[in-house]
Amino acid sequence: MRIALRQATPEDGPALWALFSAIFAEGTTYAPDEQTSESSFLADWFGRGGEQWVAEAEGKLLGAYTVRPNQPGRGAHVATASYGVAAEARGRGMGLALGTHSLERARALGYAAIQFNLVVSTNASAVKLWKGLGFQVLATLPLAFRHRVLGPVDAYLMWRSLR
Amino acid sequence: MRIALRQATPEDGPALWALFSAIFAEGTTYAPDEQTSESSFLADWFGRGGEQWVAEAEGKLLGAYTVRPNQPGRGAHVATASYGVAAEARGRGMGLALGTHSLERARALGYAAIQFNLVVSTNASAVKLWKGLGFQVLATLPLAFRHRVLGPVDAYLMWRSLR
Repeated sequence: MRIALRQATPEDGPALWALFSAIFAEGTTYAPDEQTSESSFLADWFGRGGEQWVAEAEGKLLGAYTVRPNQPGRGAHVATASYGVAAEARGRGMGLALGTHSLERARALGYAAIQFNLVVSTNASAVKLWKGLGFQVLATLPLAFRHRVLGPVDAYLMWRSLR
Repeated sequence: MRIALRQATPEDGPALWALFSAIFAEGTTYAPDEQTSESSFLADWFGRGGEQWVAEAEGKLLGAYTVRPNQPGRGAHVATASYGVAAEARGRGMGLALGTHSLERARALGYAAIQFNLVVSTNASAVKLWKGLGFQVLATLPLAFRHRVLGPVDAYLMWRSLR
């Protein structure tokens, strides 16, 4: 699959919402649920600083990420990021492409480290991807995620240095 | 010191800002820095759900906290909280009063657990307070806080069950 990344624009809003609303409905990887509205999602996605990127393949928007400060002010040198991969693009290198690109951008933006606050422990492909990209589990958050199918499951705080 | 707690109202805005802007200027315990505006602080304080409380003593507003979901949707059963104690009220039981009350409220609101995302490791009185109230350090976030005096220092993710 040939993947092309570019920075997101407000015009990508409907395609981003199609991507993420499907992920939220799955209920297995992301905290926002079916009660999330398009407007609140997009306000959050574009309104918290940092950079937003989309990935196109086969003429469609099939992936996206945002990288931004995890905390304001005295904690803003540590990034966080969120990613979405369309179901039809999974297992085809999209996650790796987004992850690799986002680490490059985070480093270029001057962040000292990057932290994911809620990686669902049962999301094996994500955990494997992030470990392969140099992340470590700093904490296991007990039963922090209510999985749609499995019920309450642990989540990981994952972190890596960018220095 | 006799401390009385009540729920905050929008009319408490100026006193809350006086309390927290002084804490932000100290630069030793909180991520927001001197660039934080009153309007953005108050929008954040009152605009993220949960409950906001203030503590009065000696006729003045000398403490405050907010308790709210740490994540939306499938993570909203875990609370987070933020606290502020005026300099003149420190070492006089205010932190313990706010902390104890907030745990009671969090339990009453049905949260399963509570998590603090950025407890500055050099803030010894806070770390001692939270450990005394049953919190444990789940992660040490390397150099996650830029202390105004000490430079980059570690921060803790602290957690306790409410069940």
